[in-house]
Amino acid sequence: MSLYTYFTPTKVIFGKGAEDQVGSLIQGQGCKKVLLHYGGGSARRSGLLDRIERSLECSGISYVSLGGVVPNPRLSLVYEGIRLAKEEGVDFILAIGGGSVIDSAKAIGYGAANDGDVWDFFTGARKPSACLPIGAVPTIAAAGSEMSWSSVITEETHGLKRSCNNDLSRPVFAVMDPELTMTLPPYQTACGCADILMHTMERYFNHSDNLDLTDGIAEALLRTVLHHSLVLRDHPDNYESRAEIMWAGSLSHNGLTGFGTDGGDWSTHKMEHELSGMFDVAHGAGLTAVWGSWARYVCRERLDRFVQFALRVMDVAPAGDDYQTALAGIAAMEEFFRSIGMPTSLTELGVSPTDAQLEEMAEKCIQAVGGKTLGVVKPLAMQDVAAIYRAAK
Amino acid sequence: MSLYTYFTPTKVIFGKGAEDQVGSLIQGQGCKKVLLHYGGGSARRSGLLDRIERSLECSGISYVSLGGVVPNPRLSLVYEGIRLAKEEGVDFILAIGGGSVIDSAKAIGYGAANDGDVWDFFTGARKPSACLPIGAVPTIAAAGSEMSWSSVITEETHGLKRSCNNDLSRPVFAVMDPELTMTLPPYQTACGCADILMHTMERYFNHSDNLDLTDGIAEALLRTVLHHSLVLRDHPDNYESRAEIMWAGSLSHNGLTGFGTDGGDWSTHKMEHELSGMFDVAHGAGLTAVWGSWARYVCRERLDRFVQFALRVMDVAPAGDDYQTALAGIAAMEEFFRSIGMPTSLTELGVSPTDAQLEEMAEKCIQAVGGKTLGVVKPLAMQDVAAIYRAAK
Repeated sequence: MSLYTYFTPTKVIFGKGAEDQVGSLIQGQGCKKVLLHYGGGSARRSGLLDRIERSLECSGISYVSLGGVVPNPRLSLVYEGIRLAKEEGVDFILAIGGGSVIDSAKAIGYGAANDGDVWDFFTGARKPSACLPIGAVPTIAAAGSEMSWSSVITEETHGLKRSCNNDLSRPVFAVMDPELTMTLPPYQTACGCADILMHTMERYFNHSDNLDLTDGIAEALLRTVLHHSLVLRDHPDNYESRAEIMWAGSLSHNGLTGFGTDGGDWSTHKMEHELSGMFDVAHGAGLTAVWGSWARYVCRERLDRFVQFALRVMDVAPAGDDYQTALAGIAAMEEFFRSIGMPTSLTELGVSPTDAQLEEMAEKCIQAVGGKTLGVVKPLAMQDVAAIYRAAK
Repeated sequence: MSLYTYFTPTKVIFGKGAEDQVGSLIQGQGCKKVLLHYGGGSARRSGLLDRIERSLECSGISYVSLGGVVPNPRLSLVYEGIRLAKEEGVDFILAIGGGSVIDSAKAIGYGAANDGDVWDFFTGARKPSACLPIGAVPTIAAAGSEMSWSSVITEETHGLKRSCNNDLSRPVFAVMDPELTMTLPPYQTACGCADILMHTMERYFNHSDNLDLTDGIAEALLRTVLHHSLVLRDHPDNYESRAEIMWAGSLSHNGLTGFGTDGGDWSTHKMEHELSGMFDVAHGAGLTAVWGSWARYVCRERLDRFVQFALRVMDVAPAGDDYQTALAGIAAMEEFFRSIGMPTSLTELGVSPTDAQLEEMAEKCIQAVGGKTLGVVKPLAMQDVAAIYRAAK
């Protein structure tokens, strides 16, 4: 195990009707003016926004609203939120929606609590020194942003997708009602399950050793998501499966499944960021389109962990040698991805980048890590990243 | 799953040398005057206290000291700590030691931040409205108090052991260095492992359903502790096993392993509290002396969970019927307890209560839950508790 800091201060209220507690939770924070931040019209149509507004009113909390967050949330809306928050004297941001909405809320929280251009925190030019308190009401199990320190924002002009990771932005509370995710379209549900698996796998494939408990927890989480993703494919209204997936989503990205590791290998996420920065694809689908090619490219460097994954998570029979077993595990995960309708190649994802575009994405990946190599299992130079993109075609 | 609140705000710094960060961590809290709270002389002899004092001095933080905490920590010392904290204007309590020291620090924190008799919070007569911030430097992996909301104090005059559970007392940080536990005597190490297992099992044996992820995490934790307890029995200086056990200790009692349950069945803990209140035995040993008798008495009520435990945790072969499988799982755990030198009966524990004493303990158990029944798997009346004590003789 490596020296590790674990910090998950978010208070989670989990279960049916949890969202009715938002008013008293914000009151408990001593806050008085809330920015309600959300996406399209579904939060209003479903009645969720009305219930939350009632809860705020009952607790004597006033609010202003800003909807319109889209997947791969935009910097332009973040600027609008910052302006609104400052003008209105907002002291709390409540994010109602998926990871995009929560990420956007975090960025607004940074911008409202610090001077200067908030984008500096995403390029790494400066570090934030504060963030408005954030509360989260997730409506999709996926990004785990409700407990994470991470915010990912897209700067539209140059198609740049960048993240800012800072404990200041961890939500003070998350009210998580699995019922809110019941009406999601199957494709979004599957994208969310893929994202949860990937948050766990990006940590699981690390270059550390002696991780019995962390591995055991990660494997239990992966097996749970594999099982309940299939239940939800066939029975989208299964409450218990929605609950399992939703809690798995939070744990996959709050630090628990990476405890004691070197942090894991986030190459697939970085490669997807460039992919969706250029083509605006769904995050979960972009991940599964690339992962298998990445895994085959790097698995010889930590064959022990890929074999362990194959045997304990994917339940494959040991093959003739470790490399074959590792490949069988990777193939089994790709087969699973396809079984829930997720792509395992760029073609299946529906994008056909030119060679020049592949090179450009590879270059941006390396730029995003400061010109160094990507990942830890096998540190990837620009030509490695390009090779993986090509293999994923 | 049931409606569940999960709140683990404690910042964990885990690994070799983590304790050198206490000064900067307390500085980060904006605190200036610390009460150093510890047990016997071992923290001084090992050099740990010196290192911590240096870390505080480097950060310009002053301190007063109060040692002398004993296992089953005493109310009288808590009163002394409260007086000292008030006199000296202490604004932070740093607990250096095992669960007893951390529990004692929490009680002092309540007493210093509230008017009236602190014992009221343990009898349930009043609820605390505040607690001084607590930091923890655990030197034994056992109680999980470094992340828990729980404090257990013994009132010596009447031999009453009572707990106060409140989020206010969750430590703001825990610096956890597995090396600090390397020199523990084998018996204490084993008692700690038993306590960690029991914190998980008391939650695992609940009356809830649909707990795939929670069960998977609990089972991974139990298997990890079973394995590394045996490593430490034979190789007490194995750092990696110390690390696995230490992290398991925190997770076993911070709410994670009970997520979505009804809270679990704490009968064994309550029965041990009365046992150690009367005979001052080691907590972990008191638990293992009683657990098997409790499990056999109640297992028919949730045979499904006892069978799952037998198969997934104890790795026993399925027997002729579920009841036999459940009994085999219980027997396997008792066998394990004995293999690490833990008792599985009161005789092995070294106490021989009279019938009158058994009845008295059973009565106190029921008093401690307000005169109602104990536990949820099979709610126990006073005569049930007495029967279990007798079966454990």
